Amino acid sequence: MAQRTEPARGMRDFLPADIRRREYVIGVIKRVYERYGFEPLETPAVENLETLMGKYGEEGNQLIFKILKRGEHEASGQADLALRYDLTVPLSRVVAHYQSKLPRLFKRYQIQPVWRADRPARGRFREFYQCDVDALGSTSPVIEAEVCAAVSDALTELGFNDFTIRINHRQVLTSILNTAGISESLHGTALVAVDKLDKIGADGVKTEMSGRGVEAGAAEKLLELFEVLGKDREKSRELLDSAGVAAFENLQAIFAHAEDTSAGVRLRFDPSLARGLSYYTGAIFEITVPDLAGSLGGGGRYDNLVGMFLGQSVPACGFSLGLERILVVMAERGMFPPTLATTPADVMMAVFDAKDTPHALRVAGLLRQSGLRVLVYPDADKIGKQIKYADSLGIPFVAILGGNEIEAGTVTVKNLTAQTQATYDQAAAAGAILEGLKQRG
Amino acid sequence: MAQRTEPARGMRDFLPADIRRREYVIGVIKRVYERYGFEPLETPAVENLETLMGKYGEEGNQLIFKILKRGEHEASGQADLALRYDLTVPLSRVVAHYQSKLPRLFKRYQIQPVWRADRPARGRFREFYQCDVDALGSTSPVIEAEVCAAVSDALTELGFNDFTIRINHRQVLTSILNTAGISESLHGTALVAVDKLDKIGADGVKTEMSGRGVEAGAAEKLLELFEVLGKDREKSRELLDSAGVAAFENLQAIFAHAEDTSAGVRLRFDPSLARGLSYYTGAIFEITVPDLAGSLGGGGRYDNLVGMFLGQSVPACGFSLGLERILVVMAERGMFPPTLATTPADVMMAVFDAKDTPHALRVAGLLRQSGLRVLVYPDADKIGKQIKYADSLGIPFVAILGGNEIEAGTVTVKNLTAQTQATYDQAAAAGAILEGLKQRG
Repeated sequence: MAQRTEPARGMRDFLPADIRRREYVIGVIKRVYERYGFEPLETPAVENLETLMGKYGEEGNQLIFKILKRGEHEASGQADLALRYDLTVPLSRVVAHYQSKLPRLFKRYQIQPVWRADRPARGRFREFYQCDVDALGSTSPVIEAEVCAAVSDALTELGFNDFTIRINHRQVLTSILNTAGISESLHGTALVAVDKLDKIGADGVKTEMSGRGVEAGAAEKLLELFEVLGKDREKSRELLDSAGVAAFENLQAIFAHAEDTSAGVRLRFDPSLARGLSYYTGAIFEITVPDLAGSLGGGGRYDNLVGMFLGQSVPACGFSLGLERILVVMAERGMFPPTLATTPADVMMAVFDAKDTPHALRVAGLLRQSGLRVLVYPDADKIGKQIKYADSLGIPFVAILGGNEIEAGTVTVKNLTAQTQATYDQAAAAGAILEGLKQRG
Repeated sequence: MAQRTEPARGMRDFLPADIRRREYVIGVIKRVYERYGFEPLETPAVENLETLMGKYGEEGNQLIFKILKRGEHEASGQADLALRYDLTVPLSRVVAHYQSKLPRLFKRYQIQPVWRADRPARGRFREFYQCDVDALGSTSPVIEAEVCAAVSDALTELGFNDFTIRINHRQVLTSILNTAGISESLHGTALVAVDKLDKIGADGVKTEMSGRGVEAGAAEKLLELFEVLGKDREKSRELLDSAGVAAFENLQAIFAHAEDTSAGVRLRFDPSLARGLSYYTGAIFEITVPDLAGSLGGGGRYDNLVGMFLGQSVPACGFSLGLERILVVMAERGMFPPTLATTPADVMMAVFDAKDTPHALRVAGLLRQSGLRVLVYPDADKIGKQIKYADSLGIPFVAILGGNEIEAGTVTVKNLTAQTQATYDQAAAAGAILEGLKQRG
């Protein structure tokens, strides 16, 4: 008779302690993003299927959760809606739709879940949160410097001090692939191999390239070029075609601007950084920390995506932090502040006798007016049992109303940590408890 | 070439001004719920289809958005997942699954979107937020009084002063239907008619009842009974069978407990209140305001729902506020505080000359360290154009760095509202702007 109770595969329930940590991290990120002039935006979880299809490459298409059309339902199996796959494509749709209502330079942040029909694995979920900042309407390298600085400030404020923002440029990559003699039709597949350089090393990349149809000579050349690139500015320019040189100069400008922000010490040019998504057109970024395989987030410039909706291109650049990975690292490193609430309430209101319950509710109301979180014990169980219950939940104070207290207009407050108790005027009890909480820190 | 840009049918995009209002309301509701000892919980947007099917009645089943099974996709049309339809069924699943990790009395709040494949209409959306409080593990009427008080405090804190919490009891309803001589098989359909009493009046209900197969005599009797019920306590008891009397006494206890809470003055017994969902077993509530057809929220006791997952029943009672309707009424009545931010930033950092951009970024960083929200203008456009841009967005202050300021380590701050300007040491500018913001109120 009983039904399955676990959440759907790859999805998670978040109990109170989880939510408190998640909200703490989201709160810090929001505050920092707002300081950079980013404004909040939210889009629906569900998009028209056609809005998402064809934006994320072939693999992406496969991972989109599709929703059955209303009415026909199971019969036809026709799907017309889909779950949001990232926050960038919906943003591009929004910018195309509301253009006249938005500032010319539209800076928005968006912190919402996305869904991918990926095979679930350790640390890989089918529902996960992204924390995005994007600026639309300017091609200035100030934008790149500022999104990197915003993300950098957010991580710093969360307590991270060992992250690196790797940066590259799609046009530099294209140029260097051309110089290495890799034909344009193989650029995509070659980049997939290049992207693994950190993981599988130069020999691994060569083997993988040959498996993907890239000539051994060209693969060799490409890896040599990566070695030179970035080491010597003048030599680097000689290796690039004119588009590549312009892109390289754009990177220099981003570095120069970032110098005077918190991102300056974090940025590192990585000529082999490729990023999977197909919509990037300019600078691309990825954030790494030493103790995490994979990245904490990534982003880049995508000047043509809004154009797919608007028919006219709007420059855009952004950065996305992965909430789940930030939480994983913070938990492993013990980075959460000890001040995060861990109990359901600051004080439990005990009920000495069933007939006194209305008095207990009234005094609970008084305590709440002072901002205290108050749990009212709902039954007139033995007082020892009630106190034990508060203690088992870590609630630090218990307020007790017996006949004497009710008559005198007082309330007795037990401090379960210090194992002391005192009786106060009902109007004064909140102040005493707040003071006691402050002393606990 | 350009694609559709509107959101999917019945779904909405929320621009910055919308989000600020939504977050304000959610913030107030959360704070009040926490004061009552409710803890935060979140569940996935996506549930196993079988978790949702059969919990909401036949009409509910029809309105569940179904998601195609991964892999097979369009080919088979098979669906194995579905979008969350409310927050109560997922809560019941969670309580069954994590029982040993949760307090014996589990009080949680949950503020998340739900999805229904309803026909969209004015004010009816396919994605909308619910703000739920529920307490599981106790049958005490203290629970009913406290969820009503929590919801009542939340609405009061938002500025509502004219709402009513209508309350009834499923067992009283059943009892009175029996007394009227309506056979049990017609109870469900009779209640649908009864629920419209407010809208279509007594004659309307009689007509509708006869259309639904209820004898005219029984319908007449039922309406008479509603008239008597609640007017006279002793007479009311005589009309009810023993289960009905017990339920009636339960309502009296809830009223008595609520008396000493903020809900006391709000509660009104409404013997014709029925509530649509099939899982209610005890007291049921609905909140109304004079200027809104439909309710701001509703709830009740559902002691058997967790049992459908656990195989063993757990008493439960809760209240759900509808965020969208609260927002509609607040907007119509102009209830949002004037202090809600309406601009993307407190100050815009202008860039006088492209070569000075790094200085502008550095000073922007200084201002941000004081918590100011700073927008850096990304291009070295004419300074007049930059100031005009800030003004068009309602940004109250513009900070300007020219050659003189850079040399002197100062920054000029223009107050666009007062049309004044002054030059400060770069380290002192934040303080001056914060002071200026405070004076604006």
